[in-house]
Amino acid sequence: MVGYFTEANSAETVNARMGEGISPRLRQVMAALVTHLHAFAKEVALTDAEWAFAIDFLTKTGQMCSEERQEFILLSDVLGLSMLVDAINNRRPAGATENTVFGPFHVEGAPVREMGDSITRDGKGERCLYTGRVIDLAGAPIAGVRIDVWSDNAEGFYSVQQPGIQDKWNNRGVFVTGADGAYSFIGIKPVSYPIPDDGPVGQMLRALGRHPRRPAHMHFLVTARGYQRLVTHTFVGDDPYLASDAVFGVKASLIAPFERTPDGPATWRSAFDFVLTPLA
Amino acid sequence: MVGYFTEANSAETVNARMGEGISPRLRQVMAALVTHLHAFAKEVALTDAEWAFAIDFLTKTGQMCSEERQEFILLSDVLGLSMLVDAINNRRPAGATENTVFGPFHVEGAPVREMGDSITRDGKGERCLYTGRVIDLAGAPIAGVRIDVWSDNAEGFYSVQQPGIQDKWNNRGVFVTGADGAYSFIGIKPVSYPIPDDGPVGQMLRALGRHPRRPAHMHFLVTARGYQRLVTHTFVGDDPYLASDAVFGVKASLIAPFERTPDGPATWRSAFDFVLTPLA
Repeated sequence: MVGYFTEANSAETVNARMGEGISPRLRQVMAALVTHLHAFAKEVALTDAEWAFAIDFLTKTGQMCSEERQEFILLSDVLGLSMLVDAINNRRPAGATENTVFGPFHVEGAPVREMGDSITRDGKGERCLYTGRVIDLAGAPIAGVRIDVWSDNAEGFYSVQQPGIQDKWNNRGVFVTGADGAYSFIGIKPVSYPIPDDGPVGQMLRALGRHPRRPAHMHFLVTARGYQRLVTHTFVGDDPYLASDAVFGVKASLIAPFERTPDGPATWRSAFDFVLTPLA
Repeated sequence: MVGYFTEANSAETVNARMGEGISPRLRQVMAALVTHLHAFAKEVALTDAEWAFAIDFLTKTGQMCSEERQEFILLSDVLGLSMLVDAINNRRPAGATENTVFGPFHVEGAPVREMGDSITRDGKGERCLYTGRVIDLAGAPIAGVRIDVWSDNAEGFYSVQQPGIQDKWNNRGVFVTGADGAYSFIGIKPVSYPIPDDGPVGQMLRALGRHPRRPAHMHFLVTARGYQRLVTHTFVGDDPYLASDAVFGVKASLIAPFERTPDGPATWRSAFDFVLTPLA
């Protein structure tokens, strides 16, 4: 007796079709995907019209993608999947600095600068001194750490979003720690901005009664030999969107102080230490 | 205390972000979608590389879509989702003819023909007489039923797949029943064929150790005032792919006899009655 597809056995029938000798990991991932996909459709009794809407939505999402735009990553971001995958793959011991989403705006190859240098080239925004140390879980400084930083400009745009308007390396730079593990540089106090919301993902957010904004943050990619790669932000502590980041990137431990410093080299000062986790 | 996103509370945090006053059905569907999506990622501990592969796969699937090709419907089909949605939305009483997938190859507006006419214009394939009645659950004939039929040609292609090679209405036609509810027409004994497998979905099938073939079938769209719309196929009973239809469309009740008829107007004869379900 052949087990034809029925509503009751649907996921099992699909999964039983996988061939022998395929990758065991692929088998595991696909079986779980099909099981959850079918359970979802059954749980809500998905209608033909809803199915057709979903097909159209996914098609438009794919067709919105280009060299400059990745709408499926945006979709993953606003559904919390990007942060979830990041969390699953970056569980860290207490005291270690936590990861958050990488985001689509990093550019490889930013210029290596001297400690204390400014990364801001457009002269816009409120100057902020970023300072602190990179240390290990015991509090010892780590030398030779590469700190790659980037932020939006004072108008809420990353340089890659405005080619020809912003310099490619505006608000970007790489700093390398010395024996004391210390870092310092001048950037701007970043501003909150909306994720690109003129596509299917923006439409979805509006239908869900959600706004597209991210709270202001400075990006850090912190890498050192022998330690886990740290991809994180520091968030401006008084941002009104901290509790409603469109991509769920905020963690309490990443909210940094931003203090006015009337006498310093900048208007603001944000001190934050990065605690790296050793490789297993 | 703000409930920031964590691995443990991920789906609840995303779902809590939905605004007041949105469509209750949208809220229900999205909450279930997010819950299952996150449960899937946690269950398999989805890696960064797997996530990135999925983003790329979905992007390519969207970009494969065109006026002539709907790769996301193909994806839904091979994952059994299309058949599941069809099953959920077309639960029928015992004795009623069952639905199966509509497929992408129907063309609206096929010519209405006289009972007994041939729908085959290219002269290829083995001629088959399709015959039977359209009846209600009590066995009474239904008059004025519109029977829209279509199949591939003897080489396994639907006319819409070969514009300029096949006539648009090759192996297509509409028949309307009289008082006896009877229908008859001559088509070909259809042949099995692969779904389009030169895109991401074909790649996926190969990775899963699955073939892309559908068992041979004749499509029927049967509509009558006062009855549920019937979208179905009859399958050629001796087809080697009946137990492994790439899109899971086969139901035991839809496997039809195809008998040799040395003396008739055709080489084959396939008798099948369609039993319609009244509208609720």
